[in-house]
Amino acid sequence: MGQTLTEKILDDHLVEGELETGEEIGIEIDQVLTQDTTGTLVWLQFEALGLDEVQTELAAQYCDHQTYQFDFKNTDDHRFLRSAAGTFGAYFSRPGNGICHNVHKENFAAPGKTLLGSDSHTPTPGGMGQLAIGSGGLDVAVAMGGGAYYIEMPEVVNVRLEGELPEWATAKDVILEMLRRLSVKGGVGKIFEYTGPGVETLTVPERTTITNMGTELGATSSVFPTDEKTRDFLERVGREDEYVEIGPDEDAEYDDQITIDLSELEPLIAEPSMPDNVVPVREVEGQDVEQVIVGSCTNGGYADILPAAKMLEGREVDMKTEMIVAPGSKQASEILARQGWSAEMMAAGVNFSEATCGACIGIGHVPASDSVSLRTFNRNFEGRSGIEDDNVYLCSPEVATAAAIKGEIVDPRDLADELGDMEAPGLELPDKFDGSKTDIIEPEEAVDDDLVKGPNIGDVPLKDELDADIEGEALLKMDDNITTDHIIPATQDILMYRSNIPKLSEFTLSRVDDTFADRALDADGGFLVAGENYGQGSSREHAALCPMYLGIEGVLAQSFARIHKANLFNFGIIPLSIDADDYEQIDQGDDIEIVDDVAEAVRSGQEEFTVRVNDDWELTATLDASEREREILADGGKLPHTKKQTEGSGAAPADD
Amino acid sequence: MGQTLTEKILDDHLVEGELETGEEIGIEIDQVLTQDTTGTLVWLQFEALGLDEVQTELAAQYCDHQTYQFDFKNTDDHRFLRSAAGTFGAYFSRPGNGICHNVHKENFAAPGKTLLGSDSHTPTPGGMGQLAIGSGGLDVAVAMGGGAYYIEMPEVVNVRLEGELPEWATAKDVILEMLRRLSVKGGVGKIFEYTGPGVETLTVPERTTITNMGTELGATSSVFPTDEKTRDFLERVGREDEYVEIGPDEDAEYDDQITIDLSELEPLIAEPSMPDNVVPVREVEGQDVEQVIVGSCTNGGYADILPAAKMLEGREVDMKTEMIVAPGSKQASEILARQGWSAEMMAAGVNFSEATCGACIGIGHVPASDSVSLRTFNRNFEGRSGIEDDNVYLCSPEVATAAAIKGEIVDPRDLADELGDMEAPGLELPDKFDGSKTDIIEPEEAVDDDLVKGPNIGDVPLKDELDADIEGEALLKMDDNITTDHIIPATQDILMYRSNIPKLSEFTLSRVDDTFADRALDADGGFLVAGENYGQGSSREHAALCPMYLGIEGVLAQSFARIHKANLFNFGIIPLSIDADDYEQIDQGDDIEIVDDVAEAVRSGQEEFTVRVNDDWELTATLDASEREREILADGGKLPHTKKQTEGSGAAPADD
Repeated sequence: MGQTLTEKILDDHLVEGELETGEEIGIEIDQVLTQDTTGTLVWLQFEALGLDEVQTELAAQYCDHQTYQFDFKNTDDHRFLRSAAGTFGAYFSRPGNGICHNVHKENFAAPGKTLLGSDSHTPTPGGMGQLAIGSGGLDVAVAMGGGAYYIEMPEVVNVRLEGELPEWATAKDVILEMLRRLSVKGGVGKIFEYTGPGVETLTVPERTTITNMGTELGATSSVFPTDEKTRDFLERVGREDEYVEIGPDEDAEYDDQITIDLSELEPLIAEPSMPDNVVPVREVEGQDVEQVIVGSCTNGGYADILPAAKMLEGREVDMKTEMIVAPGSKQASEILARQGWSAEMMAAGVNFSEATCGACIGIGHVPASDSVSLRTFNRNFEGRSGIEDDNVYLCSPEVATAAAIKGEIVDPRDLADELGDMEAPGLELPDKFDGSKTDIIEPEEAVDDDLVKGPNIGDVPLKDELDADIEGEALLKMDDNITTDHIIPATQDILMYRSNIPKLSEFTLSRVDDTFADRALDADGGFLVAGENYGQGSSREHAALCPMYLGIEGVLAQSFARIHKANLFNFGIIPLSIDADDYEQIDQGDDIEIVDDVAEAVRSGQEEFTVRVNDDWELTATLDASEREREILADGGKLPHTKKQTEGSGAAPADD
Repeated sequence: MGQTLTEKILDDHLVEGELETGEEIGIEIDQVLTQDTTGTLVWLQFEALGLDEVQTELAAQYCDHQTYQFDFKNTDDHRFLRSAAGTFGAYFSRPGNGICHNVHKENFAAPGKTLLGSDSHTPTPGGMGQLAIGSGGLDVAVAMGGGAYYIEMPEVVNVRLEGELPEWATAKDVILEMLRRLSVKGGVGKIFEYTGPGVETLTVPERTTITNMGTELGATSSVFPTDEKTRDFLERVGREDEYVEIGPDEDAEYDDQITIDLSELEPLIAEPSMPDNVVPVREVEGQDVEQVIVGSCTNGGYADILPAAKMLEGREVDMKTEMIVAPGSKQASEILARQGWSAEMMAAGVNFSEATCGACIGIGHVPASDSVSLRTFNRNFEGRSGIEDDNVYLCSPEVATAAAIKGEIVDPRDLADELGDMEAPGLELPDKFDGSKTDIIEPEEAVDDDLVKGPNIGDVPLKDELDADIEGEALLKMDDNITTDHIIPATQDILMYRSNIPKLSEFTLSRVDDTFADRALDADGGFLVAGENYGQGSSREHAALCPMYLGIEGVLAQSFARIHKANLFNFGIIPLSIDADDYEQIDQGDDIEIVDDVAEAVRSGQEEFTVRVNDDWELTATLDASEREREILADGGKLPHTKKQTEGSGAAPADD
């Protein structure tokens, strides 16, 4: 039986497990990327691993999210990231050089390689035949340390493209059509593999618009085969030697198949406030538009902005509409400027942003109240633009620009009819993506030998191996359904300390009991007690990391939310299930002792543990954990676990 | 006796008083400008005047300060400002089109005219022979309504320029030399008039760098005579017909004289954290620099950025230094882009900001902690950059760019020696400032007929004429030295309601008594009682406007701070002085009644008023006010006063 492209790349990188849908597999990671929101913790964790150097073929640190500094913290973060990249051997892309996905695509993404990134749109270079997956920061740190990345083998879905896009329909309409059909949940646990005769009609920038926004389907990743279009793109970015021909076998078997006839697509638009709320543009024509933004990691490349420039040539942005171009990379800005297109667009009334995530994450250019904004971005979740009752539509650069010219939503085909002299701009690439590389600092030319930590950047704590004896006070007894928002509140005034675990930990469980953090630090060890479904909600790792920093060694709960339980393993806190009667009998302040040799019991696979309370009575608690999770827990968490494995070997270890 | 240039322009516009130093004069205003921080209140006040149209020759509304929106309030403000400009007949410069001073200079500033602006750097076009003065928003609203502007006749100081600037010395060094000699207080109550043979060696952009930063001397304004250089600049901006030859008489007498020999100047730099902390660059060479910003209203024109571009041609920004260009106007951006310079600068590693005030007011590009930032701005007050312990230096674009190349502070003459092939860029103007005018909406092409007010934009309250009878409760009794910060706190979370007086008023005196605002609204009229020096501190008008909104009709205090007392007149609240014994006897909650016919007494010049307390005992209070202040007070404040004068006349009235 033949293999899908996904299976081929996974097979090449498999270090554990089998490629059976739903089974856990471990894969080797060739490249990693991080950005500035998630990167500081990644590097602090990497530092804690005690390694001298990044173990992957390539690591790249970008500065794109936190670029409108309002105090020193973001600037300090950037300086720290530069120093970390320099110290540990990663590429550093300076603030203003562009969005991670765009800059990575132009400079590093390579067919057949695996890429792990601490950003949800990491799958972007799937359009070049790279298998790229977004993950949490700790996974990226571990991968940089040489550890494998573990994932349940996804379903692989064949998206067969037929025909060719008609004038004014674009790659954005392909992915909007996918969202229209499948919804934002339609890709969960899946990798979309694009095949069929329509593939060769699409350039790499078009393909990466599709793979980028596969994230909005909830997909694990999206991937295209490589072909002459891939080779052509690699030539234009000066990396033709990295071309590899790679694609599915003819008799590959897929878990599912979808067919899209490109020739039947027309300009589409996602209405507020969900990316799958897709309708033909003609259904919403006539709506007044106050703001238009072309850019972001989805449609912020040269090939995305040029059509807007061509449509605006000799025209003006409507006086009641503001149009902003937010390039995905400075390279795009530079080439457009060099060719004179930037001046043309400015003359038409366009404002150019620096090459950052910016408005896409609510930083700058927040819409006015009760107004419509058309954006070429990938998300229009309510409030994401920075205003609660926003009306953000998602569309192609062509549809966005048509609205900027007309001052209202209009199908560009209708605008072209109306104007008489506006041709479909089509898609064009520069002969060479020959922008300067000044803003990428290579590992060999690093300017820092040591980490530069501002006052808001603390060390990441590292736990010792599990002891034989664990005892301590029940420091806090909680009810059912405690969320990770209870454990670490997600408000900006608290998350600004994301790089400063000691400071952030002061807020741990403050919503439940604001004396907790102080008491936990004083106690130097202890337990949390909770009811059902402990740790539900967001997946944030800080909800395990901060309790660990405060000295918590175990959680006794009636049940655990799945992801938080995994995070407890990852940070070396033992999650023990107890029954309702025992939960009722334990009081806050009780002395808790695990009677067994905990380290030995965890490693050996023991499931039942005896817990003595107040030296007075005993209960039985259960540890439900895989062999891999037990090793991680016993080693004190995923970081020390990885550290232990890499020490001595120096090479990239398999995880077990 | 001959006249100074200042006297000639004032004489041409004089509607009241005589040109004697220290005497109050009233002058007619030809042009006004507002920006987005101060503009909303200006237009709300103008609306409250009940006029249909701006009465000055020209009014221009710019959007430059609040351009990195983090929620809808700024965007709503911009939309309101556009609608106000359209409704009342002002030019509207769209967000991103540039900083008010730069765009005004390029498009509207004209020799011999008067300009009043609600921004402290309004004197910028003094470099073109315009007499331009910064003021509070209400003065601008009144001027737009046709009222005169009142000011004490300043001293006029002759700054005689001799010689010619040597290579690498610039106009920035002229004004830094002024600051070095005179300090930031050296210009208070003065207008600096530049004369002498050195004037003709300076182009208009150089002159406006000097006049812009005259504000840092504390000066009322700075002004140059016009000549061929002025005519040349007006030709390049396409307004040669607005040229007027204007200058001082040969036998003009000045209050003081300063001489600067341009040929003796060298590159200077203002060290942290005051613009007058000026030393030669060579004294601070070698200091590491992490950030360089070229731009702002001081040095953000084409002629300022081009030297930086030339110096960077074929070179790169040091890897540990970030360089940002923040153009003063989109016109500058567009011309630089069209000529290819923007692409060159990007290739060298420069990030381009939108044309806004941005980092100069701490919005974006905040320096990292414990780092040095070199900026071509006009202010380096501690904390202004957005970080408390900042190290901001002020210098010319040449000095800033040299630091970006070298990564440390260096005199550009020394860098030129070191590099061997870097020539002094000199100063060059484009043949035509031919950027697009798309972003300026003329009154005739306005897109709004009505005011568009978002939920954070409230009406400005307008008071009725003073009644014959005034009585009410002593709603709050305060101690000595109450500041305007006590009256309206200046923190961002409160001042974000600057366009929303009803909301802002909720915070009135909340630092003294947080029940006050509610009690005052319920009481529907009443008094404040205070000790010595009531209303000291910042000049903000809200400290009178908000109490007025809450219904306060009078303040009984032992003494008043000067500016706040003027603001009380301007908002129709009667400030009565009482003696210490009477102050002691009045209790909060007492009933207060002014026994006299208040309206009649105020207008007639009566100084002593009888105040009855609790219908039980009486005290004598004093009103110390000029005739003009009495009319303003009796009419219910400056807005109703102006409204009354303009109603019926339709033309620009004198103030009395």
